Amino acid sequence: MARYVVTGAAGFIGSAVVDRLLAEQNEVVGVDNFSTGQPRFLEAAQQNPRFTLHRRDLLEAEALTPILSPDVAVVFHLAASADVRFGPERPRRDLEQSTIVTSNVLESMRKTGARRIVFSSTGSVYGEAPLFPTPETCPFPIQTSLYGAGKLAAEGLIQAYAESFGLWATIFRFVYIVGERYQHGHVLDFAAQLARDPTRLRVLGDGTQRKSYLYVQDCIDAMTTALRAEGQKKVEIYNLGTDEIVTVNDSIDVICQELGVKPRREYTGGDRGWVGDNPMILLDCSKIRALGWRPRLTIREAVRATVRYLLENPWLFSVAAT
Amino acid sequence: MARYVVTGAAGFIGSAVVDRLLAEQNEVVGVDNFSTGQPRFLEAAQQNPRFTLHRRDLLEAEALTPILSPDVAVVFHLAASADVRFGPERPRRDLEQSTIVTSNVLESMRKTGARRIVFSSTGSVYGEAPLFPTPETCPFPIQTSLYGAGKLAAEGLIQAYAESFGLWATIFRFVYIVGERYQHGHVLDFAAQLARDPTRLRVLGDGTQRKSYLYVQDCIDAMTTALRAEGQKKVEIYNLGTDEIVTVNDSIDVICQELGVKPRREYTGGDRGWVGDNPMILLDCSKIRALGWRPRLTIREAVRATVRYLLENPWLFSVAAT
Repeated sequence: MARYVVTGAAGFIGSAVVDRLLAEQNEVVGVDNFSTGQPRFLEAAQQNPRFTLHRRDLLEAEALTPILSPDVAVVFHLAASADVRFGPERPRRDLEQSTIVTSNVLESMRKTGARRIVFSSTGSVYGEAPLFPTPETCPFPIQTSLYGAGKLAAEGLIQAYAESFGLWATIFRFVYIVGERYQHGHVLDFAAQLARDPTRLRVLGDGTQRKSYLYVQDCIDAMTTALRAEGQKKVEIYNLGTDEIVTVNDSIDVICQELGVKPRREYTGGDRGWVGDNPMILLDCSKIRALGWRPRLTIREAVRATVRYLLENPWLFSVAAT
Repeated sequence: MARYVVTGAAGFIGSAVVDRLLAEQNEVVGVDNFSTGQPRFLEAAQQNPRFTLHRRDLLEAEALTPILSPDVAVVFHLAASADVRFGPERPRRDLEQSTIVTSNVLESMRKTGARRIVFSSTGSVYGEAPLFPTPETCPFPIQTSLYGAGKLAAEGLIQAYAESFGLWATIFRFVYIVGERYQHGHVLDFAAQLARDPTRLRVLGDGTQRKSYLYVQDCIDAMTTALRAEGQKKVEIYNLGTDEIVTVNDSIDVICQELGVKPRREYTGGDRGWVGDNPMILLDCSKIRALGWRPRLTIREAVRATVRYLLENPWLFSVAAT
């Protein structure tokens, strides 16, 4: 039994990490400010005596310090502003929620002697990648979104702390993660639209944007696999995704099939859904695959599982609408 | 005649940019908080009716907004924490002075319609580069210093603003810049030590660290060359350095020769001068060279010019001691 701290514990991925760590008989301390986290996601965890929850805003510099100690095995730093699309409307949000919050977490670790951090970064740090599938060591990218820039800044801080203060860091660059407790992004947007009106569907862009998705439990398998790997360096970076790609239209096909609807699709046009949207994300995941990890669900299966979960949890449609 | 804004106007590079822009008959608005800037560096500029100076702390979010307007040709954002070595002692300083200050500058530009930014980044963003000479498109690096991480974060923000809000950006990754008004770094440290005691010299590391330097006027020539280039993309990134390399020991030879001293050299040992120090920096500058730019001084000539300047301005030794 080891002691873990999870920031963003009430979030989509955070709560799944909490559940997994508890299932593996660990002690887990969750931290969330509940700005986007859902108390319902922690209902199971709250029944577990090995789980403690702190409501904290990590934008406050010392918020995490009283919670950390040298015996914390890993800080899973998953608190973040989760949606890449709202960057231009709130330009400071990514700086605050990705960069400054991560700096605060690192400072608390430095002061308390907690030594190991896991960080959820994004394939968006590759901007418009010059090569596909994109490996972790691709040419130095140019940022195209505030979301990616905020994550890149956090990655850099974590790496510099590892070098300067002896931290160990594992950074994961995710594709879009879907599955149970998924609460933002286009699968939810489409399902919510179709729940309101099954006859028409508004689609940002032209529907040909190619995206990668990964099932949340496959994502967590990958993280635990990476943490158990032999011969780790102070900083390890892993792309996490599938080797497949689907278009937004493919994804809509699966959603419509699952919902049993045939809407008219209304495209806003252009090869980008929004400013900073990448027309294609496909990560080279051979580094994590070399450790023996494989995703268990295909992209279509993962989207299908997500739609089923949303149908069982229609309260998320109203969350999405806010 | 165009109107330029220079942040860090009283600094080493900033004041040289101010003087150059004034010499080219432009109107220049300088901004500095004088935390490390020197009023003496602006003595000539202050005599010029085309120069205005504002004392502002750019950590305050709206500090630059009243100064900017759509008719500003270029914002030279050169305000920064200039010394790579103090990162670990003041871990928040680079986040504040590089990342947050740059975010504030960008927000002021977005709000006022100022459209073009020049940013002074650093070869330190390459961390321990996997290839030499290191091109702008080298494999995605891992940060090794808080200084580099702060600059990388600022670069990412600038790039995302360019994509999101239509800014135009030219980012320069400097090697060590030396020359007139040089006021921090090892040429000054060594000269100051030898001014106090010409018989011994304490050297961080083993003296074999290989460094690149560039003469400040060559640096400014390169920036003006890049800004005049045809066919620029929204974001252009240029390495700025010479194609040579010298060891710290070579540099000491030049300094001692210029000062006419033969000190005993006392090495602290190891291949790094400080945590996060790179044993080698050598940038591939073929991109800027392709525009016709060449450095006029060799590294040794640049170090020599720096020592001569310091001998004429011994007041900088006391600045260095603080």
